[in-house]
Amino acid sequence: MKITLTDGREITGSKEESLYETLQSNGIFLTASCGGKGTCGKCRVQILEGDCSIKGHGKLTKAEQEEGIVLACQSFPEGDLLLNIPRESLLTVGDKIAISRTRDLFESLLKQKATISPLITRETMSLPPPSLDDHISDLDRLMRGLDEKGLSLRFSHGFVSELAGTLRANNWNLTIGIQKESGEALFIEPPNNGNGKYGLSVDIGTTTVVLYLVDLSDGRVVDVASTYNSQMRYGDDVITRIVNATEGGKLKTLRKAVVSDINDLLRPLLKLHEIERDDVESVVISGNTTMVHLFWGLNPEYIREEPYIPTVNNYPIWHAEDSGIMIWKKAPVYTIPSVASYVGGDIVAGVLATGMHRRPEISLLMDIGTNGEIVIGNNEWLMTAACSAGPCFEGSGIASGMRATEGAIEDITIDRETRVPQIKVIGNTEPLGICGSGMIDAISEMLLTGILNQKGQLVRDAAPERIREGEDCLEFVIHSSERRDIVLTQVDIENIIRAKAAIFAGVNLLLNEVGLTTDMIERVYIAGGFGNFLDTEKAIILGMIPDLPRERFHFMGNTSIAGAYYCLLSERMRREAENIGAMMTYIELSVKGNYMDEFMSAMFLPHTEMSLFPSVKPML
Amino acid sequence: MKITLTDGREITGSKEESLYETLQSNGIFLTASCGGKGTCGKCRVQILEGDCSIKGHGKLTKAEQEEGIVLACQSFPEGDLLLNIPRESLLTVGDKIAISRTRDLFESLLKQKATISPLITRETMSLPPPSLDDHISDLDRLMRGLDEKGLSLRFSHGFVSELAGTLRANNWNLTIGIQKESGEALFIEPPNNGNGKYGLSVDIGTTTVVLYLVDLSDGRVVDVASTYNSQMRYGDDVITRIVNATEGGKLKTLRKAVVSDINDLLRPLLKLHEIERDDVESVVISGNTTMVHLFWGLNPEYIREEPYIPTVNNYPIWHAEDSGIMIWKKAPVYTIPSVASYVGGDIVAGVLATGMHRRPEISLLMDIGTNGEIVIGNNEWLMTAACSAGPCFEGSGIASGMRATEGAIEDITIDRETRVPQIKVIGNTEPLGICGSGMIDAISEMLLTGILNQKGQLVRDAAPERIREGEDCLEFVIHSSERRDIVLTQVDIENIIRAKAAIFAGVNLLLNEVGLTTDMIERVYIAGGFGNFLDTEKAIILGMIPDLPRERFHFMGNTSIAGAYYCLLSERMRREAENIGAMMTYIELSVKGNYMDEFMSAMFLPHTEMSLFPSVKPML
Repeated sequence: MKITLTDGREITGSKEESLYETLQSNGIFLTASCGGKGTCGKCRVQILEGDCSIKGHGKLTKAEQEEGIVLACQSFPEGDLLLNIPRESLLTVGDKIAISRTRDLFESLLKQKATISPLITRETMSLPPPSLDDHISDLDRLMRGLDEKGLSLRFSHGFVSELAGTLRANNWNLTIGIQKESGEALFIEPPNNGNGKYGLSVDIGTTTVVLYLVDLSDGRVVDVASTYNSQMRYGDDVITRIVNATEGGKLKTLRKAVVSDINDLLRPLLKLHEIERDDVESVVISGNTTMVHLFWGLNPEYIREEPYIPTVNNYPIWHAEDSGIMIWKKAPVYTIPSVASYVGGDIVAGVLATGMHRRPEISLLMDIGTNGEIVIGNNEWLMTAACSAGPCFEGSGIASGMRATEGAIEDITIDRETRVPQIKVIGNTEPLGICGSGMIDAISEMLLTGILNQKGQLVRDAAPERIREGEDCLEFVIHSSERRDIVLTQVDIENIIRAKAAIFAGVNLLLNEVGLTTDMIERVYIAGGFGNFLDTEKAIILGMIPDLPRERFHFMGNTSIAGAYYCLLSERMRREAENIGAMMTYIELSVKGNYMDEFMSAMFLPHTEMSLFPSVKPML
Repeated sequence: MKITLTDGREITGSKEESLYETLQSNGIFLTASCGGKGTCGKCRVQILEGDCSIKGHGKLTKAEQEEGIVLACQSFPEGDLLLNIPRESLLTVGDKIAISRTRDLFESLLKQKATISPLITRETMSLPPPSLDDHISDLDRLMRGLDEKGLSLRFSHGFVSELAGTLRANNWNLTIGIQKESGEALFIEPPNNGNGKYGLSVDIGTTTVVLYLVDLSDGRVVDVASTYNSQMRYGDDVITRIVNATEGGKLKTLRKAVVSDINDLLRPLLKLHEIERDDVESVVISGNTTMVHLFWGLNPEYIREEPYIPTVNNYPIWHAEDSGIMIWKKAPVYTIPSVASYVGGDIVAGVLATGMHRRPEISLLMDIGTNGEIVIGNNEWLMTAACSAGPCFEGSGIASGMRATEGAIEDITIDRETRVPQIKVIGNTEPLGICGSGMIDAISEMLLTGILNQKGQLVRDAAPERIREGEDCLEFVIHSSERRDIVLTQVDIENIIRAKAAIFAGVNLLLNEVGLTTDMIERVYIAGGFGNFLDTEKAIILGMIPDLPRERFHFMGNTSIAGAYYCLLSERMRREAENIGAMMTYIELSVKGNYMDEFMSAMFLPHTEMSLFPSVKPML
C-alpha cells in the first residue's frame, strides 16, 4: 500500500505493520513516550484520505477523531493513505547538518588542549589478594588501595552488594569508576577499559529539546536528535509554565513532559546504534533556570516572585534515577550552573562555547531563543541580561514555521524585479516550512524589495501575485505547492518584528548600562537553533543585531548544546562553566525605566533611529 | 465462643474476627509479614478441636492442612476451639522483664556521662531572608549558613526538591537534620524540635531477633519485642545458612526472612504505641558477621572459605530504604562494626556493654548464643575467639525449649529427697517450656541429685517416677500438666553438654593462647538471652564457666542489644565500638591442634579434670 505524506514523500505500508513502525523504518520518527503501546497519546497523525484499522484511540478527543487524527501506533492501513504528520509528533533523528557541526566542536575542544575527562573518572589498581595473614575485609582492602592513591570515597549499598563478586571476577586487578565531585564509588570493571561508554548532552530549551549521544571513548558525537518541548502545551514562555506548575499544580506533569521528551529522543538513537541503555553512563543538562527547575521537579514559584530566587543555581551531581532519564540508573547527571532566575545554565554554556571569557577583548554574545539572552564582557568581567523574544525563531507561533531541520527553508532571496523568492532548503528537499534564519532573510528581503514598509506592513501593490488575503489577514506566499503553501502572514511578521525589537532593545540597554558603545565590541557571537548559518547582513537589515563591520560577526549555532557537549567531555570545561557562573553579573532590564522606549524604537525596520544603521540606510 | 490455648489460657473469639485479630487483641502477637493478607504464610496455628471457616490456605501444604494447621489471619471460629500456637508463629511484644532491664541500661549510659547524640544531629539556624540585594539561591543561602557553622554537606535530590517550601514554611528559622558521618543533609524542620523522634536497636541473632523501640528525645525504651529468626528454616547455624545463601542461591530469601522478622516486630509496636512509621528516624544493627551480611544482602560466600574474608567489617551508614526496614526511608542505619568473619558486631557490642575495654584489670566476656563468643582483655588489649555452641540455650533443638520470655521456666531446684523439681516461671504464669537458664539449673541439679551421672546419662533408678521412656529416648519430667509435660530428654541433655563443652573449651584455649590462668581474671561477664538471671553457681557445676570466686561473675543478659542501644543513643559509644573493633585480635581456635582434646575433656560433668573445679568436687 502507498502512503503519501503531505510533503510529497511516498512510502510503502502494510496491513500488518502500524503506521508508527512503517514511518520509523522509513526514517520518520514519532514521539511516543509509551514506546508504542497506545497509552501516551503522543504519536498523533492525521489521515486525510484512505482507511485504517484502528486498535484504539487512547486519549484522543472526539473532536480530534472527527478530524481524522489517529494514534500511529494503533493504526494499520487498509489501503492507500494520504497522511499529515503534525510537527509536534515528529522527532528529528540523525540530522546530518547537526552531526557535521559537532565535528567542529570536537576539534575546537582539542585545540584548547582539553583531555577527555568525563564525569566518571576511572582509576586502575591492582590489589594484593587476601590471605590468612592479610585478611581484612573486601571493602577495607579496596579502601586501602584507594588511600594509596590519595582517594577517600563513599560507597553505596548497591556498590558494596556487588563488591565480593566484582573484586574476585577481576582477580583483584580492576578499574574503579569514580564520581570525583560527589566522592562516590560507582562501579568496578575490568582494568583499562577506556574512557567510558556513552554520554548524553541535553539542551532543554523552552521550545526545543536537543540531545547529543556521545561516544566517551573518543569524544565523537554518535548522533543528534531534537524535538519540540512538550511542555509547550502548558504555555509558550517560562512565566506561563511557572504559573501552570505552581498555581495550576502541574509541576509533576511539566516535569514528566520534558523527561519523556528526552527519553523519546534517546530511545530511537539507542535502537539505531545498537547501544544498551545501561551503557549510557553520564549526562550533562543545559537549560535556562526555569527549564532546569522543571526538569528536576523543583518548585519554580520563587523564580517569578520578587526578589526572584531560584532553589538552586549550583546543582549537586545527582543520579539518572533521580531525574527519570532511562539510562544506567547511577549515571551522574551534571547540570550546568545558573546565574540567576533569568540567566540559566544555557547562557553559561553559551559563553563557554564562544570562549569569550578567555579573551581580553570585549565580546557580545546574543543567544536568540524563546528567551533572548545577551552577554557582554571579556576575561575579566561578564554582564548579562535577558529579554523575552518568544518562540517564533524556533518555528513556533508562525503559520509555516518549523525548527531548522531537514525541509526547512533557511535562506531566501527575492528577485528585485519579479519579486519571486529563491529558496534554499535544509537537506535540499521539498520545503516543509520556514525556520528562523529563513524568516530573517524573508523579512529583510521583503523590506529591500518594498514588499514590506519600514513599519512592517505588507504592501499589497508591491507584489500583487504573491500577497493575498489569508484566513485572518494578508499573507506573503514564499513557496507554492500542490499540498500546502509556505507563507508569512501579517501576524507572523509582527511576531518576528516584536522578537527582534526585544533583542535589539536588550543589547542597546545593556551596552548603555556598562557604558560602552557598539563600536567597542570586537566580536559578536550569534547563537540559536538557526541550522546551517545565519545571514548576518540580513539580520542587520532586519535591525536585530547592531550595524557593525561584518567580519566581527560569528555565527555559532546552538551554543547551549555545544557547552553541554564540552562539559560532558571535559573536567576543565566543567570548572570553567562554574567560574563563568560565578563571575557573571545579571542586570534586570525590565526594571530599567527606558526599556519600553527602547523596545518601541526597535519596532521599526531596521530602527526608528536610522543613524544606528548607517550601512542599511543607502539600501532602502 | 471460647478459644482455649494449649497452655490453658482462655480467650473469647467471634465469627466476624479472624483468629489473628482475636489473638492480637488479647496480647498474643503472631508473625505476619504480609500484615494479615494471607500471603506470607507465617501466622500458622494448629486447631486441635473445633471448627473454623477458612478463607484460604495460602502456602500451607496438604500435609500441614491435614494436621489442622491453618493461617490465623484466614480463619474465623465457628464454635469453641482448642488451639496450639507453634512458638515459631509467636512474637513477643511488651516483655516486662526486658523493658525493666532497659532502665538499668539507660542509667548506666548516664553514669558514663554520655549525652544523647543519635545518628541524626540537629543544627538550629536562622538565615537572613532573600532580598533584591541578597538574591543567591535557596541552596546557596543554606550552604552559606552551614559554612558559618563549619559544616559542608551533601544534598540529595529529595532534600533539594523540598527546600524552597521548607525554608519558607519555617520563615528561614529552622533546624536541619544532619547525618554527620556521611555528611548528608537529611531534612529541615521547625527550630528546637528536640533530639529526635524514635529509633530502633536491633539484635539479629542466629536464632532470635530482638528489637528495642527507643524514644530518642529522652533515651527511654518504649517497648521491646523479640521473635525467632525465620532464617532458621534454612539451617540452625551460620554455616548451613551460608551454604543455602550461596550454593542454594537463596541469598535474597534469607535476606527477606530476617528483614520481615524485623518489620513483623516493629508493626505491632508502632500500632500499640500509636507511632507513625515515618517518625522512626534511625536504626542500629548488631549481629554476627554472617547475620549482618545476610541482613544487607551481601554475598557471605567468602566468610566460609579460607582465608575467611567478609565483604565489610566497617559498614558505611546507609538508609533504611536500602535495608528494607519499613520506617522513614532516609533514616540512617548504623551497623556495629565486625572484627572478622567469625567475630561480629554483636561481640563488639558486648564488650561495649560491659565496659571491659575501659578498665585496666583483665576481664572475660562469654556471650552464650548460637555462636559462643569469648573475649579476654582490658583497656590495652582484647583477644577474642568463637565457638559453635548451637541454638539450645535459646530454646531451639530442645524438646520443651523456648526463649526466655513469659512462661519459660528459668530457675529449677530439685528436692534432694523427693527428687521433685521446684520451678520458677518468667511472669509467674503456667509454664510453657524451659529457657537456657532453666536448662543450666536443671542439669546441675540433676547432677547433684544423682539423676544424671558425670557422663551426662540419665540414671533411671535415681528418680523412677520422673524418668520415663519418651518417643525416642529416656526423658526427665520437669513439670506435668494436663496438656503437655515439660521434659528434658537424653538427647536434649547431650545437646546441652555439647554446647557447654564447646564454650568451656573455647575459654580454656583462649586463656592458654594469651598465657593467662583462670585466677588472673578479675571479672567474668556472662551474656546471652537468659532472661532475668543466670545462676552462676549452677553454671559452674555444669562446667560451662570457670570455677572462680562467685563475686567475680556478672550476669549481663543480652549484651548485643544493650550495645546496640548505647550506639543508637550516643556518638561516643559509636566511636568506642569502632575502637573496640579496631583493637580486638581474633584467634581461630579450630586450627589449634588441641581444640578437640579440650572439647572432649569438657564433655564430662563438670569436667574430666576435676582439679579445674575444686569447689564442685565436694558437692558430688
